[in-house]
Amino acid sequence: MCPGPNENGVNGQNGVSGQNGHSTDQATKKRAAAGPYQPVGDALSNIANFKIIESTLREGEQFANAFFDTETKIKIATMLSDFGVEYLELTSPAASPQSRADLETICKLGLKSKILTHTRCNMEDAKLAVECGVDGIDVVIGTSSMLQAHSHGKDMEYITRTAIEVIEFIKSKGIEVRFSSEDSFRSDLADLLFLYKAVDRVGVNRVGVADTVGCATPRQVYDLVRTLRTVVGCDIEIHLHNDTMCAVANAYAALEAGATHIDTSVLGIGERNGITPLGGLLARMIVSSHEYVTSRYKLHKLKEVEDYVAETVQINVPFNNPVTGFCAFTHKAGIHAKAILNEPSTYEIINPADFGIGRYIHFAHRLTGWNAIKSRVEQLGLAMNDDQIKILTNQIKAMADIRPLAIDDTDSVIRAFHFELQGEDVDKMNSTGALTVEN
Amino acid sequence: MCPGPNENGVNGQNGVSGQNGHSTDQATKKRAAAGPYQPVGDALSNIANFKIIESTLREGEQFANAFFDTETKIKIATMLSDFGVEYLELTSPAASPQSRADLETICKLGLKSKILTHTRCNMEDAKLAVECGVDGIDVVIGTSSMLQAHSHGKDMEYITRTAIEVIEFIKSKGIEVRFSSEDSFRSDLADLLFLYKAVDRVGVNRVGVADTVGCATPRQVYDLVRTLRTVVGCDIEIHLHNDTMCAVANAYAALEAGATHIDTSVLGIGERNGITPLGGLLARMIVSSHEYVTSRYKLHKLKEVEDYVAETVQINVPFNNPVTGFCAFTHKAGIHAKAILNEPSTYEIINPADFGIGRYIHFAHRLTGWNAIKSRVEQLGLAMNDDQIKILTNQIKAMADIRPLAIDDTDSVIRAFHFELQGEDVDKMNSTGALTVEN
Repeated sequence: MCPGPNENGVNGQNGVSGQNGHSTDQATKKRAAAGPYQPVGDALSNIANFKIIESTLREGEQFANAFFDTETKIKIATMLSDFGVEYLELTSPAASPQSRADLETICKLGLKSKILTHTRCNMEDAKLAVECGVDGIDVVIGTSSMLQAHSHGKDMEYITRTAIEVIEFIKSKGIEVRFSSEDSFRSDLADLLFLYKAVDRVGVNRVGVADTVGCATPRQVYDLVRTLRTVVGCDIEIHLHNDTMCAVANAYAALEAGATHIDTSVLGIGERNGITPLGGLLARMIVSSHEYVTSRYKLHKLKEVEDYVAETVQINVPFNNPVTGFCAFTHKAGIHAKAILNEPSTYEIINPADFGIGRYIHFAHRLTGWNAIKSRVEQLGLAMNDDQIKILTNQIKAMADIRPLAIDDTDSVIRAFHFELQGEDVDKMNSTGALTVEN
Repeated sequence: MCPGPNENGVNGQNGVSGQNGHSTDQATKKRAAAGPYQPVGDALSNIANFKIIESTLREGEQFANAFFDTETKIKIATMLSDFGVEYLELTSPAASPQSRADLETICKLGLKSKILTHTRCNMEDAKLAVECGVDGIDVVIGTSSMLQAHSHGKDMEYITRTAIEVIEFIKSKGIEVRFSSEDSFRSDLADLLFLYKAVDRVGVNRVGVADTVGCATPRQVYDLVRTLRTVVGCDIEIHLHNDTMCAVANAYAALEAGATHIDTSVLGIGERNGITPLGGLLARMIVSSHEYVTSRYKLHKLKEVEDYVAETVQINVPFNNPVTGFCAFTHKAGIHAKAILNEPSTYEIINPADFGIGRYIHFAHRLTGWNAIKSRVEQLGLAMNDDQIKILTNQIKAMADIRPLAIDDTDSVIRAFHFELQGEDVDKMNSTGALTVEN
């Protein structure tokens, strides 16, 4: 294999890249099967049977930097539909005249994903949404005592009555309807279950649980969804904010407890720090449900969608973004590099090839080991024995102790060392060949 | 309150900023106490009693972009010690001569944090570490069947014998010692517990559980730590990689199950996508244990440490970084803005003032509401009644439907509207005053 930058636009750095390092497809299955700590296989779990409600065009529009014009919305909707998400959620047509026009435009595109819009729980908004031609309407109302006091100021009886009226109206139009509370984890549990049971009884398609402020922990999510699962027969959707960095883990806990639908946005953009990111969720799910995830979603397109949305809202993809971050598959420490060269699944739980991404073994630094250097020596087409490579490794570590090393610095050291061992003629031939490939 | 950019270097954008929007200190306590979903208060939980092992100078040095020279290491160590972390973990002195020299230098600084180094589980490394003057040594060995086959190739009996020898040696020098397995979640449970029990019996200070590949889920972490808690009497440390974005939630689950020490690095930097980030962990913990976290750590210094490390390793702080990301406390949607203006804790689970950071209400966009515009009108010192503000809000939404709005665009619309209402003289006076403050 020749050295070179990784494919698919992943930042290449000094090191050894490989597109398909896993010896077989079985490697991926093996890594999921290894070890005693498998997902708790209880009867409620939907770990291998969930749907994605992609809300970049609703929650994502609430991101500080987001301004989506019609053309951008069409492009994002089309990319996400091609990617394979089951639903797209768009901003309420009541938000502004252009929001309404864009919703109508996207409903007419004939995308594979179902088109939802997200409205307040009142008849006026519901009627407007129906007129736009959507496949479904996600209605929401705040239920926490704090929101009741400071936001809309309505009591539980009023909420229940309104919810039923709105749901029955939407159902009468043959359209899918979801009813969600807001700030569910700071709402009164008895009120919440009473309300969900009431809307389930009138035939709501899904109830939604929302961690609006990002306060929930995985066990709280598990407990609430599991309790709710015993109260309603309909599907359960979960919407999780990421203020305390638990939005992916909480989505997983919700699925374990019987949730059926997960809200996401590309890169997680939304109000404040946003919600469960699409890529983060799939990184989590592919580890537990490889077959389900790879059969359902076109994972090779993930990076393209993320890059497009990042550019549109003028942000950088975080350095540590799951799967597509520049260092997600970069291995540096000597013992890591050694094991990865033997069998990638030792230090990789995700096979980067599933996402069309390469891995990278970083060898030009003081934590390097002789296995990484040996691999580089072989890539350069040079011949050395193990003892020689160990001496060379110490020379490289000594240099790297003084300053950061670039790939050509390190290759020069390798070649100089080889030159001393082999004589001028042999070395010249090899190094010329290798350099051509590198630049 | 006058409009202006947020303090502390948080990116200011078009909107209303406020440094201390919470009416009282009680607001913070109230938000933690609200709602029925409190941390499950079982006897094992260390949610309000944990210690941080800050590994930026060890795990963080394994980050692709990291090269820390002596001066940088001293600065990072000093900042983190001042911040209040209980332990600093540094790269093994066996890694390179400079690594050894730097470890000795930092041990002599007399920092408040205890100094640890992280070594392979063998006598040679342990002796070298002891000579460097550390307060403690974190030894590690791979235990998963995959690592046994592909990395060091040693069997369980050999691992146990070596571990005991190394631990007894370190203890004999009066130095703290931790023994950790590697890839614990893909190791054989019986082997793992046997090994931990053996080292506990010879007086190890802590055992470490490591999710080396980032595969674990919160329930798996909870189950393993809870089981381990019944087997050993010593402290339990947990080291969690973030490949599937669960490292913060998993740390929380570990504490709920009785873990005592959490490994972190600044911004989570480390191998691949790194580990539990210091800031992310504290965002999670302050929600559940406000008093413990605020009494123990100098949270106002978090942003400074993160910015310094980001600059050193040449990365951008992620846009959605917990607490310090530019949009962490930015509120955009109309109903959010309205509620936040009434009572911040409706849509904020963390009080930004605890971290010396301001909040921001975004009003110049099509999802805005009249409460946000009213607040802006008041900031500009203009007088309008609610009906007038509602008409004005519709004008602004119509403009924002066409293109992104800057703050001065929006203020111009507000002033023009006010001008029509009030006449030229009054308006000129007010707008001049407001503009001065803004720029």
